[in-house]
Amino acid sequence: MNYLVTGAAGFIGANIAQKLLDSGHRVVTIDNLSTGYESAIPKQCIFIKGDVSEDRTIQKLNNANFDAILHIAGQSSGEVSFEDPAYDINSNTVSTLKLLDYAVKTKCKRFIYASTMSVYGEQDKKEQFSENDATIPKSFYAVGKLASESYLRIYQEQYGIKYTSLRYFNVYGAGQNLENLKQGMISIYLKQFIDDAFKKVEVKGSVGRFRDLSYVDDVASVSIESIHNEKFYNEVINIGTGKKTTIKKMLQLMKDYLGSSKEVIISRGTKGDQFGTYADVSKLKSIYSKEFIGFDVGLRKMIKGIKDEM
Amino acid sequence: MNYLVTGAAGFIGANIAQKLLDSGHRVVTIDNLSTGYESAIPKQCIFIKGDVSEDRTIQKLNNANFDAILHIAGQSSGEVSFEDPAYDINSNTVSTLKLLDYAVKTKCKRFIYASTMSVYGEQDKKEQFSENDATIPKSFYAVGKLASESYLRIYQEQYGIKYTSLRYFNVYGAGQNLENLKQGMISIYLKQFIDDAFKKVEVKGSVGRFRDLSYVDDVASVSIESIHNEKFYNEVINIGTGKKTTIKKMLQLMKDYLGSSKEVIISRGTKGDQFGTYADVSKLKSIYSKEFIGFDVGLRKMIKGIKDEM
Repeated sequence: MNYLVTGAAGFIGANIAQKLLDSGHRVVTIDNLSTGYESAIPKQCIFIKGDVSEDRTIQKLNNANFDAILHIAGQSSGEVSFEDPAYDINSNTVSTLKLLDYAVKTKCKRFIYASTMSVYGEQDKKEQFSENDATIPKSFYAVGKLASESYLRIYQEQYGIKYTSLRYFNVYGAGQNLENLKQGMISIYLKQFIDDAFKKVEVKGSVGRFRDLSYVDDVASVSIESIHNEKFYNEVINIGTGKKTTIKKMLQLMKDYLGSSKEVIISRGTKGDQFGTYADVSKLKSIYSKEFIGFDVGLRKMIKGIKDEM
Repeated sequence: MNYLVTGAAGFIGANIAQKLLDSGHRVVTIDNLSTGYESAIPKQCIFIKGDVSEDRTIQKLNNANFDAILHIAGQSSGEVSFEDPAYDINSNTVSTLKLLDYAVKTKCKRFIYASTMSVYGEQDKKEQFSENDATIPKSFYAVGKLASESYLRIYQEQYGIKYTSLRYFNVYGAGQNLENLKQGMISIYLKQFIDDAFKKVEVKGSVGRFRDLSYVDDVASVSIESIHNEKFYNEVINIGTGKKTTIKKMLQLMKDYLGSSKEVIISRGTKGDQFGTYADVSKLKSIYSKEFIGFDVGLRKMIKGIKDEM
């Protein structure tokens, strides 16, 4: 098969692309390298450098037919979305439109979209969210993702595109960019523990906050499963473990596994950040039986990956 | 007072601007004249020609302070939004961001936004919508409007902007552009009845469909009321009559009032068009006591306005 996976310089896109390549498929990727590195793109990928939101980038695809488009690329930090909201729209919304147009034009019927749990926002003291819950996005990033989900629904109704919106909860794992300190809670903390340039580990906001943490391999696997499993077609699906891990627990496990004695200091939270949200995964479980690995196991894998590279 | 009213070449924006001018206020408007005419802009308005979504347009405001910004401009046809979804985002979403940024920069605390009942979409056989109902937009136009509503909420949380999102239901009335056959059900039908170039009146979709029709004067009045009435602050509010008027009824009244014998033909509906939606106006009624005029009265006023101009 022939797939387009956008954002293969990012760790989720790279993981998906690698798995598809390992299964013998052809993979084309588009990435603007705004936060990823070209070296992170799997070697056998056909790489087009550019912004998905620009026509000249789409033109480089030469009207090639794909069996599915997996749109994983996008500015993915809620914090950064506050610095340049207009760029964020472009990255997360216009890009989806351009790819949907391309799908219609080239008769590609399958479209998988990397959405986010951020679309739910914070709703009073509600912690667990199912796909039927209201969406009250608190960051520009989340607004753009939610708009993209609506575009998919409209393209399904109007043009018969079979879409899947995967609402990723917090994803972590080997390959995550440790140099980007605005994106990825686990990578941000690990970087500070590991890099001697940091004398202390700074946590922005309360350690009582929690996340629903999924290992990147599990997220990539379910994303690939969704391509051909019809139960995923035209659905919005939470992708998470359904379990809470507090920041306190994350920090404790990191200290233990790394044998670190660095001091942790707590500072003020960032704009639009969420206290804690975890997935109601009953919809996912009803159509996908593979279990996600626990954070303790995943963190060890991630640390091993980092050490292997050092 | 000094107000910025975007879109004063459009009939709602023009009506709001005129009322503000009549009350002795200063009004600046921005309009790109994409569907409106410069001649429709009230004479005393200070007119800046340009796209609100472009920085060079915003720069022409010279950092002037406004007591309130009323963002009424925007591509407003669901049908047109399917022709160029990316333009639609720009018109309806980036423009809101640029104005919100301007409001923060110039310390303008009051922002009124012309949203739409289209954000609700069609939900099975549900006909009446309140502000607490789910939003499932069916057109790109509606997606952009809904995203803008989220931006307002974020700017309120982050920067203390006091916003009001007015979800206009179908607005009609004197000053409506009869030459734009893609926008405004009443104006589209009236144009076909009045203009001899049309041998018949074409209705796209069933005459059993209905609309909640508000006369433009009423909509402008409540929009202006919202500027200083604190009960409107940081609220999303349906603006409609809470009453249904079927297309059959609209056509019958037009025939009667115009004394027309033109044949009406029914053709296929347009993409993303809605069967029928009317407002739950209990929230509006709880904070605003003035009654909206009925469609029979409003249609007579509109037809009189058109005849006076001929």
